[in-house]
Amino acid sequence: MDPEEYRKAGYAAIDYIIDYFKTMDERKVVADVEPGYLRKLLPTEMPAEPEKFDDVHRDFESKIVPGLTNWQSPNFLAFFPSNVSYPSMLGELYSSAFSAPGFNWICSPAMTELETIVLDWLAKQMALPKCFLSDGEGMGIIQGSASESVITCMVAARDRYLRDAVAAKYETEEEKEEAIASARGKLVAFASDQTHSSTQKAALIAGVRYIAIPTSAEEEYALTGARLEAALAEAEAKGLMPFFLTASMGTTAVVAIDRFGEIAEVTKSRPQLWKHIDAAYAGAALVCPEHQHMLDGVEDNYDSFDMNMHKWLLVNFDASCMYVRRRRDLADALSVMPPYLRNSVSDQGLVVDFRDYQLPLGRRFRALKVWFVMRTYGSSGLQEHIRRTSKIGELFTERVRARADLFAIVAKPRLGLTVFQVVAPGSSAGTEATNAVSKKVAARIEKEGQLYLTSSTVHGAFAMRVVTGSPWATEGAMEEAYAYIEKVAEEERSE
Amino acid sequence: MDPEEYRKAGYAAIDYIIDYFKTMDERKVVADVEPGYLRKLLPTEMPAEPEKFDDVHRDFESKIVPGLTNWQSPNFLAFFPSNVSYPSMLGELYSSAFSAPGFNWICSPAMTELETIVLDWLAKQMALPKCFLSDGEGMGIIQGSASESVITCMVAARDRYLRDAVAAKYETEEEKEEAIASARGKLVAFASDQTHSSTQKAALIAGVRYIAIPTSAEEEYALTGARLEAALAEAEAKGLMPFFLTASMGTTAVVAIDRFGEIAEVTKSRPQLWKHIDAAYAGAALVCPEHQHMLDGVEDNYDSFDMNMHKWLLVNFDASCMYVRRRRDLADALSVMPPYLRNSVSDQGLVVDFRDYQLPLGRRFRALKVWFVMRTYGSSGLQEHIRRTSKIGELFTERVRARADLFAIVAKPRLGLTVFQVVAPGSSAGTEATNAVSKKVAARIEKEGQLYLTSSTVHGAFAMRVVTGSPWATEGAMEEAYAYIEKVAEEERSE
Repeated sequence: MDPEEYRKAGYAAIDYIIDYFKTMDERKVVADVEPGYLRKLLPTEMPAEPEKFDDVHRDFESKIVPGLTNWQSPNFLAFFPSNVSYPSMLGELYSSAFSAPGFNWICSPAMTELETIVLDWLAKQMALPKCFLSDGEGMGIIQGSASESVITCMVAARDRYLRDAVAAKYETEEEKEEAIASARGKLVAFASDQTHSSTQKAALIAGVRYIAIPTSAEEEYALTGARLEAALAEAEAKGLMPFFLTASMGTTAVVAIDRFGEIAEVTKSRPQLWKHIDAAYAGAALVCPEHQHMLDGVEDNYDSFDMNMHKWLLVNFDASCMYVRRRRDLADALSVMPPYLRNSVSDQGLVVDFRDYQLPLGRRFRALKVWFVMRTYGSSGLQEHIRRTSKIGELFTERVRARADLFAIVAKPRLGLTVFQVVAPGSSAGTEATNAVSKKVAARIEKEGQLYLTSSTVHGAFAMRVVTGSPWATEGAMEEAYAYIEKVAEEERSE
Repeated sequence: MDPEEYRKAGYAAIDYIIDYFKTMDERKVVADVEPGYLRKLLPTEMPAEPEKFDDVHRDFESKIVPGLTNWQSPNFLAFFPSNVSYPSMLGELYSSAFSAPGFNWICSPAMTELETIVLDWLAKQMALPKCFLSDGEGMGIIQGSASESVITCMVAARDRYLRDAVAAKYETEEEKEEAIASARGKLVAFASDQTHSSTQKAALIAGVRYIAIPTSAEEEYALTGARLEAALAEAEAKGLMPFFLTASMGTTAVVAIDRFGEIAEVTKSRPQLWKHIDAAYAGAALVCPEHQHMLDGVEDNYDSFDMNMHKWLLVNFDASCMYVRRRRDLADALSVMPPYLRNSVSDQGLVVDFRDYQLPLGRRFRALKVWFVMRTYGSSGLQEHIRRTSKIGELFTERVRARADLFAIVAKPRLGLTVFQVVAPGSSAGTEATNAVSKKVAARIEKEGQLYLTSSTVHGAFAMRVVTGSPWATEGAMEEAYAYIEKVAEEERSE
């Protein structure tokens, strides 16, 4: 492909993308294809000779696009949103042109510097505690996902604990090594039973135990200080070593918010316990002052914080914004310096080399799309997006509330998410009969494919989740979605 | 930014990128900026109100672009290449528009299916053993980097070893747990002292020991069967448990190739030892039949293989192509299934959900750019790229060889990489005096900034590495680069 062919195909791609979004509401939300559909349509080997891009594009339109699930569709009410915006796509495009695995500052200085700056901007806008800004011992860094952030922090926490709480008690290298080896099997990471599975997976990866602490509906599915204290004391009594906790600002199933102040109080006597806040979805709302009460009790009590701009803040996947209070904790655990990565700027300690603060060596220039989004929206534009889409979600909540005879709300609706059941005739929330009819409704919605929503089980109650957040979401589409769900619920219930 | 503004800015971005590459040879290869340059140029907070993209773009051109290190420059001879191509950028652009964290098949079926297909295409073109194809127990999957691949495989290897080689010997759950806890401190991963640092870092992350096995210049820095056997026996005699080995097809410093056949022979009696091949750079050359002898001895003896299309195979960062012989090994270690991720297609076992084969949950649609590149280049185009750029590298080798009075070659040149010293007057390769003059030459080249190359230390010898691989590399630029290096070498040597 020569430059002129690229120009033609590039312009056409820009046009195609505009049309894709313009026709979003006509597109089926979930791809209507069978498992294995694509293998039947493509050859078994790559072509030997170059093909014209027009031919490739024809296949792309007829074979790939029908196999996409359209996350920006106003009918996509599942999981959490996966935003994209025009300036974000431009950032991604330029970033691909500047292809570089920016592991060290010198690999492309603007990559590292812009990232630090935009993460400071974001931290200030979210009113994060000052300890997370880069002008002290803290720092923000963009990771690929909230999962990678929690793995990174857990590995740093594990090594800090083994060094400061285990090995430090011994004199000789041999004793230290022996103590660390015997401690490895006793380390345990904690989180509430509502916490995203990424913490459990991080524990698998880091090779440590994992304990899920129960929550209750009465306490709004939040992790409380009392429940944490009980779990820690029980583990310690068994000789286990609690070294890590994920506290959630907005859990996946119901957007529960853990009690940060109580947790900080309980863990004060355990300074080696790393406290991580997973705000993957809800963190976006912190750009609005009216949501910043979610930070109550956080202050400078937490070691790390993570939110995904790629969920609800207009940056396309991936841009997971992770902050640590003491960046050295990460480098202590993750720095390896072979001779071929040495350079004079790094050797003099003048710069931060991001490879020491993440799992992989290489990294993409993700700060560019973040910067484009921040500047073209401004903080007022980001706030407007959060407020507008929350309101669309709340519209659904109101409709559900108005039909208390038909629906039961399972958890306090927050940030545009409604979690609800369809109540069986003559029954109430949480019964077997209600679970059964709710399952039937969810199965029919999945089968008919007009909407896409996620089901989950919350303490035994089978519930459906409805949440939006796409820049292409509209009140009208949400009204229609509600009307459709109401109709299906009534029909299935009366069967 | 509305659609029409995006159209205008998008067309302009395409034009800008074409100009960026057209003027590549006029650009300074390494950014000429001081640490902290950008903070002085940007405000300390994000703007409150939306800004026009024209204004953002003006800042982008004047403040960001000068801070880039230009990896496609013909004067970029450092590290390994980080290719980009026009069709690859188009793939990245479309992929950003379809923003989705494709953790499950249903999240966007085309994402999963196309990835499996193009990785099969690539495996066949590289003549990889059939065990890595997706039609049996194996599979290919795109990871973000070779680092993530080795972490993923090492975690799977660790858990497989603890289950099959440790816990399996015991009856009760309690005994098994006890045995695993005590084994954790004894696990050890191996690689040669020339292996990329990502294996050592993976051992830090997985929480296991790491042993680097010595290599020698006489054996071309390859890991041999005899050296591996000695290292394994020594570790086992100490009560350690060898569970993982990285064998390199092309090490970072000198592109050494480990002796796969000998390694397979030595490890035959240790079936629980996971054998991973890191072919991050050199793997690209396997698309040419004349390089496929590098696979000798691999056969179906290895558990996993990884190469980066984003280095030398025309796909922009990131696209690390990882293959496993038994995909179940990964899912056994990494699968966590919370209720909110369940869906009927996954529950029926009809599909592969890639989240179970990688560290993070979410993932990008990277297969699209890979497919665009394969189809627009065809296998003949990929081969032509490898052959053309290798030849440019070999041109440098020839020039260096012709001046045996001035230069000493440190390791057998391979795949376009030359590793060399500047020999001190009256001295020879590897002496203190030669190291000293080589350091002076490297420091001056770094300071003058006309070329960018990497230095390394190979068994005590301070050496410079020259390698290209950029689609924008030319013979003319390489001749100039050689002439410049020769001039600096002569001047510094005669001082």
